[in-house]
Amino acid sequence: MTKNVVIHEVGPREGAQIEDPPIPTAAKVALSDALSETGLESIELVAFVSPKWVPAMADAEDVLARITRKPGVRYTGIYLNVQGLERALKTDCAIEGHLSISASETFGKRNTNRTREEALAAQPEFIAAYKAAGIPVDTVLVSAAFGCNFEGYIPLERVTDTIARLIAIADEHGERIAHVKLLDTMGWANPEQIRRTIDAVRTRWPHLEIALHLHDTRGLGLANANAALHEDVRRFDSAVAGLGGCPFAAVKGAPGNITTEDFAFMCEEMGISTGLDLDKLVACAALAEEIFGRALPGHLSKGGLFRAKRPVSWVQSIA
Amino acid sequence: MTKNVVIHEVGPREGAQIEDPPIPTAAKVALSDALSETGLESIELVAFVSPKWVPAMADAEDVLARITRKPGVRYTGIYLNVQGLERALKTDCAIEGHLSISASETFGKRNTNRTREEALAAQPEFIAAYKAAGIPVDTVLVSAAFGCNFEGYIPLERVTDTIARLIAIADEHGERIAHVKLLDTMGWANPEQIRRTIDAVRTRWPHLEIALHLHDTRGLGLANANAALHEDVRRFDSAVAGLGGCPFAAVKGAPGNITTEDFAFMCEEMGISTGLDLDKLVACAALAEEIFGRALPGHLSKGGLFRAKRPVSWVQSIA
Repeated sequence: MTKNVVIHEVGPREGAQIEDPPIPTAAKVALSDALSETGLESIELVAFVSPKWVPAMADAEDVLARITRKPGVRYTGIYLNVQGLERALKTDCAIEGHLSISASETFGKRNTNRTREEALAAQPEFIAAYKAAGIPVDTVLVSAAFGCNFEGYIPLERVTDTIARLIAIADEHGERIAHVKLLDTMGWANPEQIRRTIDAVRTRWPHLEIALHLHDTRGLGLANANAALHEDVRRFDSAVAGLGGCPFAAVKGAPGNITTEDFAFMCEEMGISTGLDLDKLVACAALAEEIFGRALPGHLSKGGLFRAKRPVSWVQSIA
Repeated sequence: MTKNVVIHEVGPREGAQIEDPPIPTAAKVALSDALSETGLESIELVAFVSPKWVPAMADAEDVLARITRKPGVRYTGIYLNVQGLERALKTDCAIEGHLSISASETFGKRNTNRTREEALAAQPEFIAAYKAAGIPVDTVLVSAAFGCNFEGYIPLERVTDTIARLIAIADEHGERIAHVKLLDTMGWANPEQIRRTIDAVRTRWPHLEIALHLHDTRGLGLANANAALHEDVRRFDSAVAGLGGCPFAAVKGAPGNITTEDFAFMCEEMGISTGLDLDKLVACAALAEEIFGRALPGHLSKGGLFRAKRPVSWVQSIA
């Protein structure tokens, strides 16, 4: 089992993108600033997508301009096409060169308006844009990697095939892939599937570092994360207060990403270091509930952290 | 990993006992009748406790008299003292002879108004009452077995010591203990603690069948349950829609027990048989939300079951 994890916070972007009416820019800035003080190394704030499709993200550049930047913290955004990447490049958000595709044809089409083959064919455009900006392409992302609300479960072979094709495209353009992120976009994974998928990817590409982006849509999020910890995965996305969901995923009102403070708590309770301040994260979850104006899925803010009741000896005894 | 699990549904009792004002008797009966059709083998409906302390349970006998009994289903209730047991014996609820105590002195005192030594000293009274009714005493229960909101974490040695003392009391009275149920009453366990606790109990008492009663207070419920599945535990308590909580546990509004439909879903997705109808359980969760008049913690009813999208081949491939 891994001894430490690195958490990429995606709550501000995941949460804000599904809001209608949109969250005020000042509130997004306040959440980012509070999260910056928790020990997080990277925070995903915005999506560079068309305001026509996601009005809640129209203020992406404005959010990035107004946040207080904590030294050592990377502030990131997502994009689904090269126009989005070009917008991101004009801001000072941190950009990681990556290729990304859905393992599910139907979900990919809904999310990016492209078939799988069209999406694969579009990857060289991304590579050219990264190259022009001097950014190495070292990561591949596979969304809907475990199942899809439209297509059902995704066979493991499709995941490995997708990774292989993205690596091949990178190779053709002289880029070396070192990281793979698997996204359980619609919450289809189970712990056994996590274990087998990680095994298969690692067996075929031992040099790739695996990251997971897990959703808690059907309640299995932390069980899946724990299965991955046992497979020595140490990079995870999660969202404060369990913010998140996907506007193109067929279910409205479903729970979102795994909850940052719950996941970090689980890790710390098992002696796995997160580098995060759990008390401050719980305060951020409360702030998120205030901003979003509703009860959010995270447990720790309701169940209580009881740090004073947890002696260091416990963690020492279990680590 | 176990190939099948047996779930004891505790939602009606866990949920109803914390309601103020109390849930109407007819609604309790409706929930019981719906749950009876899901394949559950046992359903915990009531607590035989003083209406002065838990007014919501004043109709315990009435609930048991009015439900429709499905053949093969056991309908049960809990009690915290011999008066409660005597009340239960006058009804036709299923009664399992058991000895029960809290691993936490403080929680035990709040829950039963007895110190740990007083509670131990009271066990022979229970045995006498069971003997008089012709019911063998074959089970020990340890509540707050992993941690306590008042005392903090519970050392493993206190759990094994508690089990040993209860077994010794049973032995003195000629009763043979075959089952132990460990209750994470306030949601303190983590997967690694689950693993170590089960290991320790099984090493010392290989003949005991272990059952778990897990709460999802701080989000780790299903991760803990999965850890137990890997240790070949096959008996679990859970609550439809994630009902539950404890009136004496220091946190109001915290999430309740692990959710029956989410847990059963996790099992079935991994090829572990539950014998339950997931669609009917999701419908029961919706009924529970209607009865309790609020959103309940369960995920599956919000995230979607998508059974039609899940081919049998998937379960076969993973089983």
